[in-house]
Amino acid sequence: MDAYALSITQASELIAAGELSPVELTESVLARIEYAEPHLNAFVEVTADLAMIAAKAAEVEIAEGGYRGPLHGIPLGVKDLYETAGIRTTSSSKVRADYVPDTDSTVVQKLLGAGMIMVGKTHTHEFALGGVTPTTRNPWHTGHIPGGSSGGSGAAVASGECMVGLGSDTGGSIRMPAALCGTVGLKPTYGLVSRRGVASLSWSLDHVGPLTRTVRDTALVMDAIAGYERSDPASLDLVPQSYTADLDHHAGDDLTGLTVGVPSNFFFDDVDEEVDAAVRAAIGQLEFLGARVVEVTIPMAQYISAAAQLIVRAEAAAYHRRMMRASGDLYTEQVRRGILAGEVVLATDYIDALRMRTLVQREWSAMVIGAGVDVIAAPTCPIPAPPADLGTRTWASGLVEDLGRAVGRYSAPANIMGLPGLSVPVGLSSGGLPIGMQLMGRPFEESTVLRVGQAYEQTKATALPVLAL
Amino acid sequence: MDAYALSITQASELIAAGELSPVELTESVLARIEYAEPHLNAFVEVTADLAMIAAKAAEVEIAEGGYRGPLHGIPLGVKDLYETAGIRTTSSSKVRADYVPDTDSTVVQKLLGAGMIMVGKTHTHEFALGGVTPTTRNPWHTGHIPGGSSGGSGAAVASGECMVGLGSDTGGSIRMPAALCGTVGLKPTYGLVSRRGVASLSWSLDHVGPLTRTVRDTALVMDAIAGYERSDPASLDLVPQSYTADLDHHAGDDLTGLTVGVPSNFFFDDVDEEVDAAVRAAIGQLEFLGARVVEVTIPMAQYISAAAQLIVRAEAAAYHRRMMRASGDLYTEQVRRGILAGEVVLATDYIDALRMRTLVQREWSAMVIGAGVDVIAAPTCPIPAPPADLGTRTWASGLVEDLGRAVGRYSAPANIMGLPGLSVPVGLSSGGLPIGMQLMGRPFEESTVLRVGQAYEQTKATALPVLAL
Repeated sequence: MDAYALSITQASELIAAGELSPVELTESVLARIEYAEPHLNAFVEVTADLAMIAAKAAEVEIAEGGYRGPLHGIPLGVKDLYETAGIRTTSSSKVRADYVPDTDSTVVQKLLGAGMIMVGKTHTHEFALGGVTPTTRNPWHTGHIPGGSSGGSGAAVASGECMVGLGSDTGGSIRMPAALCGTVGLKPTYGLVSRRGVASLSWSLDHVGPLTRTVRDTALVMDAIAGYERSDPASLDLVPQSYTADLDHHAGDDLTGLTVGVPSNFFFDDVDEEVDAAVRAAIGQLEFLGARVVEVTIPMAQYISAAAQLIVRAEAAAYHRRMMRASGDLYTEQVRRGILAGEVVLATDYIDALRMRTLVQREWSAMVIGAGVDVIAAPTCPIPAPPADLGTRTWASGLVEDLGRAVGRYSAPANIMGLPGLSVPVGLSSGGLPIGMQLMGRPFEESTVLRVGQAYEQTKATALPVLAL
Repeated sequence: MDAYALSITQASELIAAGELSPVELTESVLARIEYAEPHLNAFVEVTADLAMIAAKAAEVEIAEGGYRGPLHGIPLGVKDLYETAGIRTTSSSKVRADYVPDTDSTVVQKLLGAGMIMVGKTHTHEFALGGVTPTTRNPWHTGHIPGGSSGGSGAAVASGECMVGLGSDTGGSIRMPAALCGTVGLKPTYGLVSRRGVASLSWSLDHVGPLTRTVRDTALVMDAIAGYERSDPASLDLVPQSYTADLDHHAGDDLTGLTVGVPSNFFFDDVDEEVDAAVRAAIGQLEFLGARVVEVTIPMAQYISAAAQLIVRAEAAAYHRRMMRASGDLYTEQVRRGILAGEVVLATDYIDALRMRTLVQREWSAMVIGAGVDVIAAPTCPIPAPPADLGTRTWASGLVEDLGRAVGRYSAPANIMGLPGLSVPVGLSSGGLPIGMQLMGRPFEESTVLRVGQAYEQTKATALPVLAL
């Protein structure tokens, strides 16, 4: 196997044992980027020279006994919303074409501090205002979208262009590309990971987190990035925990004692038949592993996305206000229209949406406690990756839906609720496109969500391969 | 001394010892109401018959050995924003003229559960949208306002019409009437006391709390009403503490070891000379008692009230939206205009105000920690109670200010910051009107604020008397 195709867990064991050098690994990943980028365009900028310098420094440090831990020497792709010191941070927008921050965002700082090697900045929908990532193609079928807004990270991780891709998730933007590109993607609980230095879309719904190729790789990244920081107003000061230690403690365990909720409404409404079948088969697998499976009813489902959309519109308009005045003509037309729509939202409407959110949170919590559910399992997206020119689909219910919208239809609840949401690959469609299952947990119960995801992952004959393109 | 003029601490000792009956006490208070109400109009409704029934029940219960504690048999006035089961709750508005709730608000429930005797519902500015309480007069000089919006409770407590008056405080509405009527008034930390069943003015700034005649009386009420409740989204689940026990532990103590911050800006700007002198004398007293006094600078002072006003406008408009549509013509003109102004606030402006609040909170916290301050001492209001016809005052700075606005100029910071704010009487103006000192503490450090307030109170030759009218 080429080095680029290893999991972090595999690569880090080799690096720790002196059998793989960060230089070899980075060279393998950069070669993979050179091969794949013409097909994918996942990166805004590849920082090959800096990566090689960092890899050589890591090689020397490790050789001299300074091994920092399992992320040392591991290649990283950083969504271009994350500020990176001395490296352009464009948010995939002409508005920020020349923006070079002085300091790293907190998550980047922590990961570089853990010894990771940044290989480049990955594409997003302009300022994360969309679920498509129009610059980038899906590595499983380059005629299709990778999903968004962390589409660059999704495509890069799936294709072997990096081992971790950083993402951000306001209405599904980590989980959607994870599902459509066939990677693991975790949106952590609101407040668990600091967002300092990441361009905001909607501060009350924004989350940051990783995309990786295995569940354990996600746990490794979470060990490094979770934690309190005063300058993110949402950040919470909690006792740190080791997600990897917890996962390893349960490795090979069955799921006896855990309860999985399967929604009878909303999450399986207007869903592609193949997605439905793959997710239900995966849930069957969880039951086979010992989990108790119960039916749950999603409360106030019809209000969740409406509230989320209004909140995002208003908060995005507030964030972009000054930039719109200074350089409104540099935005793409679609994104400018989205922001303008937010500028005319009334405070009373926004407040009503916030109050609705409070009610939904309360009802959701009562549902989870009432049913004794540890995780809720559902499709991440109603469809596999749609073609790049999108189009519409007419559902049996009569709904005629734009496919760019369809991909995001199941993701808002975890944002509105602030709950951990993990997408894990559960197979391929007949067209050869990945399908993702979404596991939503209780607040700050990332460990449980990861445990269920890993238990499922381990039962598959092989993990989804890094594809050949 | 007539029974109505006792403090709770005094009355409860007599009741516990069998030397005073709740019936005698309630009769004394009802007689006082009958005497004072024609001058004050503090009550929307006096519930004399129900009070006598409750007093007799308390008398029997106590005689049979069922003494519930220091609030048992103590007369209570309830601001008419608080829902009371079976008793009209008008919020001093024609819109709610016929509204009779089924259940008590949480605070009322807890106080009745502790054995208090409700003697009536006290006036507020219509839906608390103002600082004047136009229905009611100041017991120290009936040509003057009592302050608001808990003006009914302030006038009732100061004049002996009840021993506790419940208030609510969105921009100073407990502390202002406390200062202008010469009572103690506490706005607790945001999230400490449940607001369930109290009409909302601005949910993110609303607080509920008591007005009493002594600091220890406030601690007694806080012991009964603090605590978590799921149905108030702001409520926090904290370890309960006994404010009275803490106060008694420090009774007679000096203040050595505590640091009092005195603002060099904002809180002494454009202040009446007599208010300035009285509050500075009181601060000198705290220093004499052993406190270290340091100067502090209020950060971003110019933005605090602006942010608070915009937040209140928008949130009040959202709360009143449906009532305005159904019965907009029943509001008084001034309040209707205030709500209409909120209806046209844009979400982006509201969000900017929320972001401003976050910044101010951070800077305030840095100031408090940097200066090592336990409490900040300042005037509660820049002026003593203005005349009922208000008018304006021209300050040395050149500011020409409506006196109805002036009374609220110092109170928004504790709401924006969510911090405990206690007003204690510190003397009378040459016109015979009370002056209040505001003590602002750290979050959930009510005990410290009460301790400083009580230490000051104990050094006075006599507490402010219940006035003769």
